Amino acid sequence: MIEKKPSKALVLLSGGLDSTTCLAIALRENDEVYTVSFDYGQRHVAELQCAEKIALALGVKRHRVIRIDGSYFQGCALTDRQVDVPDFDNARLGIPVTYVPARNTLFLSYALGWAEVLAADYIYIGVNAVDYSGYPDCRPAFIAAFQQMADLATKAGIEGHGVRILTPLMSFSKAQIIQAGLSLGVDYRLTVSCYRADIEGKACGQCDSCHYRREGFLSLGVEDATLYYPK
Amino acid sequence: MIEKKPSKALVLLSGGLDSTTCLAIALRENDEVYTVSFDYGQRHVAELQCAEKIALALGVKRHRVIRIDGSYFQGCALTDRQVDVPDFDNARLGIPVTYVPARNTLFLSYALGWAEVLAADYIYIGVNAVDYSGYPDCRPAFIAAFQQMADLATKAGIEGHGVRILTPLMSFSKAQIIQAGLSLGVDYRLTVSCYRADIEGKACGQCDSCHYRREGFLSLGVEDATLYYPK
Repeated sequence: MIEKKPSKALVLLSGGLDSTTCLAIALRENDEVYTVSFDYGQRHVAELQCAEKIALALGVKRHRVIRIDGSYFQGCALTDRQVDVPDFDNARLGIPVTYVPARNTLFLSYALGWAEVLAADYIYIGVNAVDYSGYPDCRPAFIAAFQQMADLATKAGIEGHGVRILTPLMSFSKAQIIQAGLSLGVDYRLTVSCYRADIEGKACGQCDSCHYRREGFLSLGVEDATLYYPK
Repeated sequence: MIEKKPSKALVLLSGGLDSTTCLAIALRENDEVYTVSFDYGQRHVAELQCAEKIALALGVKRHRVIRIDGSYFQGCALTDRQVDVPDFDNARLGIPVTYVPARNTLFLSYALGWAEVLAADYIYIGVNAVDYSGYPDCRPAFIAAFQQMADLATKAGIEGHGVRILTPLMSFSKAQIIQAGLSLGVDYRLTVSCYRADIEGKACGQCDSCHYRREGFLSLGVEDATLYYPK
């Protein structure tokens, strides 16, 4: 009998709801799973602690935190203390100030390098183009272009065994993401979504990220254990 | 009279011969020039000091050093002290062990983010696909794919004023690069090319990078001021 080569996956894990669901999917689909988080000076630093706990709880092979010098992300509400995170606004047009220049490009580039060293088969990223803030680097066209670039960028890519980037949540609504996670036994108490989360992971309830999370749980009729701090 | 908007460029500056020539070209072609170097744990750390001196000598608007946690580049001769840098070997086939996984992808991703914050028009990168070690991420197809990805990744890109990536040295021989630099007044004594350079910037004379540099100067009949350390 020929033994199948065990499949290896690297998952981008922010500590939020989407990436945690994505990790649960990757764990179901692969033999060996690695996770990576990025400390890029985000104000909602609580998510990094969540990511570590989640990686430990779900039993990944190795979790790594990569520090990105984000001091040049001036003007972005997620990293620049001079700029306020706005409340969710249904009438808002365009890309919000929470956009971080080239963020997913940078995250995927690090993942691409580490995946090549690991000889990983897949990179999982929990991007979603339904219930999201309109960031350009969460859309299918971006992921497809990154894949094409990656195949030309690396030794593994040009040798024909480059890593494949998977986005299992791309076309899910937030409710569908939560449903998928619950069916895989994800404990969403471990996750934090809020852009203004305090150090304990308590949420503001007003930002885009809180909005989409709450709507998702509400439409499913499932209770969310998120704790909110007083305004 | 309508004043032309001043053009802004960001140059990837390693401190070597190619990127320094590239910088001289960018300074001729633009009103405002920024430079960025990467400290990724390379053993030839002397190049970072050279880059800083070059940026100062040529009068760029701002020079930035970005630290990349390269601890996961295991097995690469440029970052892993367990792996020797090989001597140049004309008969060698394939990509050498000095290949760093996703290096230019990562460098360009950082540049893409900073360029968007600066509202820069151009990123200059001194890649060359003639006298080079065969790295996949130095070829025109890679750069074109990165450009395509970048246009989809960023706010500026999808709004139609994304940064353009320029590779003025792509099809030059090493001798042509040196000639171009000399005609622009580049002082190559400021640069270091060797993969095994010591802390003072003295070179081994045996690695790929030393080989291409020496051949370039020799074929031009120009003296190179590089100092070599005893073997």
